[in-house]
Amino acid sequence: MRRVAIIGVGCTSVGEIWDKSLKDLAVEASLKALDDAGIENVDRVYIGNALSPILQYQTNLASIIIDSLGFNNSSSILVEAADASGGLAFHEAFKAVRSGLIDYALVVGVEKMSDSKPSEVASALMSFEDQDYVAFTGVTQAGLHALLLRIYMEKFNVKHEDIALFAVNAHKNASKNPYAQFKNIIRVEDVLKSPLIADPLRLLEYVGISDGAAAVVLCPLEEAEKFRSNFVEILASATAVDKLFLTERDDILTFNSTRIAAEKAFKEAKVSPKDIDVVEVHDSSTIAGIISLEDLGFCGKGEGASFVSQGKIDLNGELPTNTMGGLKGRGHPIGATGVYQIIEVVWQLRGEAGKNQVDGAKIGLTQNIAGLGSSAVVNILRVV
Amino acid sequence: MRRVAIIGVGCTSVGEIWDKSLKDLAVEASLKALDDAGIENVDRVYIGNALSPILQYQTNLASIIIDSLGFNNSSSILVEAADASGGLAFHEAFKAVRSGLIDYALVVGVEKMSDSKPSEVASALMSFEDQDYVAFTGVTQAGLHALLLRIYMEKFNVKHEDIALFAVNAHKNASKNPYAQFKNIIRVEDVLKSPLIADPLRLLEYVGISDGAAAVVLCPLEEAEKFRSNFVEILASATAVDKLFLTERDDILTFNSTRIAAEKAFKEAKVSPKDIDVVEVHDSSTIAGIISLEDLGFCGKGEGASFVSQGKIDLNGELPTNTMGGLKGRGHPIGATGVYQIIEVVWQLRGEAGKNQVDGAKIGLTQNIAGLGSSAVVNILRVV
Repeated sequence: MRRVAIIGVGCTSVGEIWDKSLKDLAVEASLKALDDAGIENVDRVYIGNALSPILQYQTNLASIIIDSLGFNNSSSILVEAADASGGLAFHEAFKAVRSGLIDYALVVGVEKMSDSKPSEVASALMSFEDQDYVAFTGVTQAGLHALLLRIYMEKFNVKHEDIALFAVNAHKNASKNPYAQFKNIIRVEDVLKSPLIADPLRLLEYVGISDGAAAVVLCPLEEAEKFRSNFVEILASATAVDKLFLTERDDILTFNSTRIAAEKAFKEAKVSPKDIDVVEVHDSSTIAGIISLEDLGFCGKGEGASFVSQGKIDLNGELPTNTMGGLKGRGHPIGATGVYQIIEVVWQLRGEAGKNQVDGAKIGLTQNIAGLGSSAVVNILRVV
Repeated sequence: MRRVAIIGVGCTSVGEIWDKSLKDLAVEASLKALDDAGIENVDRVYIGNALSPILQYQTNLASIIIDSLGFNNSSSILVEAADASGGLAFHEAFKAVRSGLIDYALVVGVEKMSDSKPSEVASALMSFEDQDYVAFTGVTQAGLHALLLRIYMEKFNVKHEDIALFAVNAHKNASKNPYAQFKNIIRVEDVLKSPLIADPLRLLEYVGISDGAAAVVLCPLEEAEKFRSNFVEILASATAVDKLFLTERDDILTFNSTRIAAEKAFKEAKVSPKDIDVVEVHDSSTIAGIISLEDLGFCGKGEGASFVSQGKIDLNGELPTNTMGGLKGRGHPIGATGVYQIIEVVWQLRGEAGKNQVDGAKIGLTQNIAGLGSSAVVNILRVV
């Protein structure tokens, strides 16, 4: 199996982008990534998107995007895995290049949500859960996160303030990320005074509604030097699944898919959590971010909140986390998020993270999950 | 690159299956295929499905199906490419086994359409075309096929009767396929007297609305003998794309994606059209079936209709085509169709096609396209 490099990255700003279509966003991000790599064509395009069939009433998006890009001699594939769509598209592309099936891959994550009513988006997001047994009850994704938050606080006797800090860190980092959607600085008391959206979960600790697209270009490591000096190697990309229903899991506060994918990734990359300089975790809510830190092995079970309150996830802390704002601050354009995470770690590793640069970051990790962790993708990257 | 075998196949009946859910269908077909292979688990599950986000309001189907199967130690991925979803899922699985990424793969194509109103289905099917430039006009898939039919008849001075024969052959074969949806024998005059659904296209030359699931198990060829004596080798699996808009194509009556994928597949398999004993083409309409025969290289451009009227596609003809009924007769459960095609060719090659058995069939070909051919998958199989 070959070693694989990331030689180009590009993204649109995240936000409510009224004047661009789903295709416009995908093409803009793709052209930026191709330009960053200095390449004009690839062997295959991998699209990550989750909601376009529901929100845009558009399927066959892989054909549509490759046609928009004018790549008539390559092929394209769409991978859908809820909000892990982008991460899984990246994983598939990595494996294809690694195995020698193809040499050059473009991965594009894209989502357009703001044209739809919030109630339609909330409903669409529940399509991630089983319609027959869960979604039909009317519970929302926020409602499921609220359950985890309540159980976590009770089980580990943790204060809501400490958990809310996760969102404070996210907004602080987003405030200096030119591509982020939510750049306002918030304090813990702002989070705890913000509207209840599903008791005890507050508005400011849950993701918003976002449009955006992100793209990366992969090639065999041995070819990467032709394109640029500071490229990034993908040391590992691992996936795992968990039981879909929260009620069927042995421990409702553990994302087994993350735990298993992380174990595989650390083993494959031959590094340990201590070696990670920057991390992007899937903070679709504050509590999801904290559980993710635990399941990735950065702290023990039940210790995530104190890990956060001790400042360890700050930009200058022990483990700078979600350094460009994470899902909460950068925004969470569902199928694009996994690719945004990759780009942000690449920026850190190439020393291009601007005001959010973590000095000397060499190795980074991204974790992208579907819904409440029915599947997970964990990637470990290193600058070469 | 390794050689790859199909060691198990299984499917549900195609039809209006009111008492089974999308999951039920996927699980039933999967268990049959696993049982046929004599295997209990696989490394990875590839799901082909196109419309569940729209018709069932269900995304994240790869997680849902792998969870229903209880495969906690493998991973799953959903591939969506309109009605080529099943074919492309198969293609991805083939490449993964071929490259050594995984050893055992289960491919499941599934679709559930009959719970929805016909108008909803017609609208969902138009999600295959670009919403911004084509779908919003209100044209239907049948309307697009009607355009091709009219232009074809005019350009090549062909009688509608000869084209209608494609559907007659489909129903004749379906009548003896226990899994087929439309088992009624029809005559040319029945086709031409059936209701106009988009002038000049008639009801009996266009696909219906179907539920169904089909599954196959793949493994490295060198392992196949452990499981069964008469396994099938995948000699080639190739994909290609075409311009999405009919109006942008150089020749509206050519599916370039099929043409290019077929060229690649014949080259990879080291066989020619003459070597093919049975073929499954994507007859989403009579005219689509005829154009496909031409673009696969079985006859010249404009000669497809006379190829059919000369009886060459009959079970005892020169090139037995859609021997189990094709999309028209077996039924067209969108994301499952590409996998049904594989199964039916496997039955032929293993001598298990019952009353439709083509004597001595050794090599078969399947062609599965998205919409009007925005992408295509062509597979060539041989019994070992």
